[in-house]
Amino acid sequence: MGEADAHREKKARIKAAKDRLYASKTREKGLLIVHTGTGKGKSTAAFGLVLRTLGHGRRVGIVQFVKGRRTTGERMFLERFPELVTLRVMGEGFTWETQDRARDIRAARAAFDEARRMLRDPELHLLLLDELNIVLRYDYLPLDEVLEALERRRPDLHVVVTGRNAPEELIARADLVTEMKLVKHPFREGVKAQLGIEY
Amino acid sequence: MGEADAHREKKARIKAAKDRLYASKTREKGLLIVHTGTGKGKSTAAFGLVLRTLGHGRRVGIVQFVKGRRTTGERMFLERFPELVTLRVMGEGFTWETQDRARDIRAARAAFDEARRMLRDPELHLLLLDELNIVLRYDYLPLDEVLEALERRRPDLHVVVTGRNAPEELIARADLVTEMKLVKHPFREGVKAQLGIEY
Repeated sequence: MGEADAHREKKARIKAAKDRLYASKTREKGLLIVHTGTGKGKSTAAFGLVLRTLGHGRRVGIVQFVKGRRTTGERMFLERFPELVTLRVMGEGFTWETQDRARDIRAARAAFDEARRMLRDPELHLLLLDELNIVLRYDYLPLDEVLEALERRRPDLHVVVTGRNAPEELIARADLVTEMKLVKHPFREGVKAQLGIEY
Repeated sequence: MGEADAHREKKARIKAAKDRLYASKTREKGLLIVHTGTGKGKSTAAFGLVLRTLGHGRRVGIVQFVKGRRTTGERMFLERFPELVTLRVMGEGFTWETQDRARDIRAARAAFDEARRMLRDPELHLLLLDELNIVLRYDYLPLDEVLEALERRRPDLHVVVTGRNAPEELIARADLVTEMKLVKHPFREGVKAQLGIEY
């Protein structure tokens, strides 16, 4: 093969590679996103995605699997947009204080039934399953069932799953995984939970 | 010392320790928060804090040190709340494409002058200095000057600084530092930037 042929062949190879890259970069699909790790910012970054999505006028579904305080800034804010946000908070039972595993499992199941419905909702652009990892960690729902429901979601729906200790199998199936790593935390320095920051 | 005395002394020691803990936990102060690392979610989590703060009806200031696309979801969303959000985006020059260092430095300086004013604004609950770490990384502003301005902020103002490569000196002074660590990223798997997720 002459030098000119080699050069042409190399150029063709580069062009083919570029074409493949370009084609792949324009693929549209709903992402499965996981925010895990022991640092702050897992749910907070998910609420940042919610804000971003609302900015585009798209609809958001939220299922909160761990019941926290009622008057969080995010909840008060999102309740102002009932036409764009569907927010479900898991029932009374699931507060980590009940010591009643059967009741917690019923609450997890009811919340996941809501999530399952939203996974197929044609109106949503983003679904946040807040603290679902915690529920999985405690084996309140079968992992296989959850993974299958995520897999079978509407193909262009973005889903964010938050909570520490994300199962390996979930990470393996996710498109985008961020670990929030604690570098420094104010509770360790003696500052109490602050409005607008922690809640 | 009898057994009863030893018991009383131990109880007093425990009570004193609890009192100290309680006092420290109720200290009110504005936090200096840093979101750094190479993963996704640094600015996104900051916008989550913005949403939380707005939910409590408090005011937010935002200075974006890196000019991105105009039609981000966050920008479109926050522009709906001019009474609660003051948003400044750094001038045209600073796009990483100008190759004009003097111009970039002028733009960084102008943006930081805005930030400095907001650091003293009595109305704000939270100030987001988005991508300030990038400006510091390129030495467009003197680190000492920035640290001093942060130090002298209104004492109960929360400040969030985002961007990869946060300087060690900033981390040392921060109250809460989270490193967003990339575990998996969809660009590497050939999915393009998605509305509501990346912008």
